[in-house]
Amino acid sequence: MEAWGIHHLGVAVADLDEALGTYERLFGAEVEHRATVEDQGVRAASLRIGGGRVELLEPLGEDTPVGRFLAKRGPGMHHVAYQVSDVRATIAELAEAGADLIDPEPREGLFGLEVAFVHPDSVHGVLSEVVSTG
Amino acid sequence: MEAWGIHHLGVAVADLDEALGTYERLFGAEVEHRATVEDQGVRAASLRIGGGRVELLEPLGEDTPVGRFLAKRGPGMHHVAYQVSDVRATIAELAEAGADLIDPEPREGLFGLEVAFVHPDSVHGVLSEVVSTG
Repeated sequence: MEAWGIHHLGVAVADLDEALGTYERLFGAEVEHRATVEDQGVRAASLRIGGGRVELLEPLGEDTPVGRFLAKRGPGMHHVAYQVSDVRATIAELAEAGADLIDPEPREGLFGLEVAFVHPDSVHGVLSEVVSTG
Repeated sequence: MEAWGIHHLGVAVADLDEALGTYERLFGAEVEHRATVEDQGVRAASLRIGGGRVELLEPLGEDTPVGRFLAKRGPGMHHVAYQVSDVRATIAELAEAGADLIDPEPREGLFGLEVAFVHPDSVHGVLSEVVSTG
């Protein structure tokens, strides 16, 4: 696949507002978007740190993907997202290259992004996402 | 502090060559640098994925920082590095903002970078690095 670069780093946090405050205070982060997305089980904020981007993810409950991650691993880095021009074409290329796709079809991610996730077992333990801004 | 963006994502791997092959095959990664750094206990490769950068880190032994990380957490994302213009000035700003610095003075990182690490307990579980290309 051909990626433009790292779109964002996804970080699981226990308390979104507290974590937001830390990123603003330490790294000069600026909030780009905020949303509560019930069907994905998260309260989330997209932050800009210079030209970079960090997504903070607070689970809405224990029985959500991010809730289970937090219970098992504690807070920390959750996934990395690479920006591509066409998620559907990239999924086909990734499958052809042998990747185990969590999403065999593009789906809507946070903040209006079109996304697909690759299973961490295919990427040496790193949950990897491809995103397009559409 | 004022960051330009994410300089790289640091990833702990068990086998550098195998992981490199995966990143080339799945993500079209291109090797920018490779090095074995005895005093940091790693074999490392810096990869470009479009405009983004991933550093793969294989420990030289179990009793190294990355070796202990692997034993405890398994392979996966290890740290994120933000690019700044002046590591020494950034260290002072981070200390003033209450961050617990692993490196109170700039030190030489991989591939000639000037770096300092912030303790993950200050950043909600994310080992965070500031780097300058000097």
